[in-house]
Amino acid sequence: MTEMLPQGAVIGILGGGQLGRMLSVAAARLGYRTCIYDPAGNPPASHVANAHVKAGWDDVSALRDFAAGCDVITYEFENIPAEALDLIGAETPIYPGRKALEVSSDRLTEKRFLEGLGLAVAPHAPVQDARSLREAIAEIGSPAILKTRRLGYDGKGQARIDGPEAAEPALEELAGVPAILEGFVKFACEISVIAARGADGQVSCFDPGMNVHRNGILHQTTVPAPIASRLNTDAVILAGRILNALDYVGVLGVELFVTADGLVVNEIAPRVHNSGHWTQNGCAVDQFEQHIRAIAGWPLGDGSRHSDVVMENLIGDDIGRLPAMAAETSAALHLYGKAEARPGRKMGHVNRVTPMRKA
Amino acid sequence: MTEMLPQGAVIGILGGGQLGRMLSVAAARLGYRTCIYDPAGNPPASHVANAHVKAGWDDVSALRDFAAGCDVITYEFENIPAEALDLIGAETPIYPGRKALEVSSDRLTEKRFLEGLGLAVAPHAPVQDARSLREAIAEIGSPAILKTRRLGYDGKGQARIDGPEAAEPALEELAGVPAILEGFVKFACEISVIAARGADGQVSCFDPGMNVHRNGILHQTTVPAPIASRLNTDAVILAGRILNALDYVGVLGVELFVTADGLVVNEIAPRVHNSGHWTQNGCAVDQFEQHIRAIAGWPLGDGSRHSDVVMENLIGDDIGRLPAMAAETSAALHLYGKAEARPGRKMGHVNRVTPMRKA
Repeated sequence: MTEMLPQGAVIGILGGGQLGRMLSVAAARLGYRTCIYDPAGNPPASHVANAHVKAGWDDVSALRDFAAGCDVITYEFENIPAEALDLIGAETPIYPGRKALEVSSDRLTEKRFLEGLGLAVAPHAPVQDARSLREAIAEIGSPAILKTRRLGYDGKGQARIDGPEAAEPALEELAGVPAILEGFVKFACEISVIAARGADGQVSCFDPGMNVHRNGILHQTTVPAPIASRLNTDAVILAGRILNALDYVGVLGVELFVTADGLVVNEIAPRVHNSGHWTQNGCAVDQFEQHIRAIAGWPLGDGSRHSDVVMENLIGDDIGRLPAMAAETSAALHLYGKAEARPGRKMGHVNRVTPMRKA
Repeated sequence: MTEMLPQGAVIGILGGGQLGRMLSVAAARLGYRTCIYDPAGNPPASHVANAHVKAGWDDVSALRDFAAGCDVITYEFENIPAEALDLIGAETPIYPGRKALEVSSDRLTEKRFLEGLGLAVAPHAPVQDARSLREAIAEIGSPAILKTRRLGYDGKGQARIDGPEAAEPALEELAGVPAILEGFVKFACEISVIAARGADGQVSCFDPGMNVHRNGILHQTTVPAPIASRLNTDAVILAGRILNALDYVGVLGVELFVTADGLVVNEIAPRVHNSGHWTQNGCAVDQFEQHIRAIAGWPLGDGSRHSDVVMENLIGDDIGRLPAMAAETSAALHLYGKAEARPGRKMGHVNRVTPMRKA
């Protein structure tokens, strides 16, 4: 049993988007104060936090002061500059730890790490120039997707390659950034597991959900996922193996393809995950609280499901449907307090809750 | 259909305790900003609000500025000075309205209002001096309870009178404040209904819960209440009648005694209510969101119950049991971020959730 962070302690959150916002509410519910670090003015998380440090990722003194004012620090996105993490981490513990960040912020490192655990991943090859791209296409075939190794998010920094002739323009678009060519995986559906590991090594997973994307952005997560119960078990065991290998503390999102040969890991995210938002209305303890429990040294909470849920993201103009959704029976709305609805911008989500069907 | 308050609008909350805190989180979840008005420094609600005005109830310019900065205003307690309400209300709408506050902030006015609706209340008589107290004891009998007409809360300002000889000391304790003598009601149990009415007149009630008090403070609420379903229906109809008579907008707590002759109204509270905290883990839309929906012109949400819940208040030193409760299966904790645990102080509550038993 590890020590629980005392009531009233300050949890720092790097990034003030909707994930930071919902983490902040969970931290308050467990009796903690929160401080958001975000260069933006008025980020969504700042509306429900004790404090907001508005400073850049290269602001050495702001980073140091922030770290000194926090008892423990976490993050809502994985592309935080390493220098900022070095500065903060020298002062205050960061969870999940650096290993998870290093692995997950580089697609090639991540795939090699997963293969090292004996897990299946998509066929892939590193690409740094025209020659390595030609070789990669020859090896993996096409269609395939060329992705930057770092900084990818919601379909940005990606180019589809339908044949050798598409190689050159795709490479130009990436402008010399290290990349990876990924082959397509034939899958029946995509599922994800939201997995948690406590500071004491305890592991707990929420029920896997089935994901549907639109325009490269998560559209819908359905729980329970309509898959064989054997695959549910496989997914949970696999997630546990990743958590233990990373000596992980916190919540991890694991995206998986369901194929004829079993599960293939698409990617992992060392943070609370959009496909875990259903837990807010499906479980007594949701992914945000589970994450705070883990990083605050609490035992993990009870993530068992009490209801079936379909989560739908509200993107851009979807927010115009708010009046209709507000009147919908069994619809639980979660809005992010963003002033302006832009195309592709996540404005909120709705969890449609129904009584649990027996398996 | 009334107009919905636009996204990003500011909801003002008078009072920054735990009720204001949980209202603030619900407002944020629906896309609103919040501003807390509370004379105290660092009140629990300020940890999860956009702004906190720290000023007294007699600070005219602070009250005016606060009101001018809010699109709609609500409150978490019913004893707000009338002068403050006058100032604020001249600028910005307050929900629930003044009528509900006037009725519920005076025990005698409240009982007469309820009797006027044909509802049963405890035997009672007004007391202003020794003579009226003697007459009241003669009429109602003893034991009885002498209560101040205004400002009572959690058992404060009350004196038990076991016979005529106890009258004088009890009266001295009240020091000339207008009072009411209430006879005891023989009841099997106390239940409460958390009822909501929208701006469009729509009424919705959560399932009644059974309350157990300790030392005059709510200890536990059990839902469903172990009472005949006929009484459930009676309670809900009765609550609806009160809401409509007050032209009410928001959530109202109604405490009821279950007696051999049916339901007797103990008291009403024009706000979210401690006995409604179970809804946070028992329903897709809880009492806090239901209140925000009502005052923001939304349709009421779906308050149907998906789980059985026993809510227990954590008072004073109860918070010392936190490590054990954190490890308990099916226990959802809600802590208020109060720095110091004092005797009788509400530090948080725990909702113990179990699958719904079929009726």
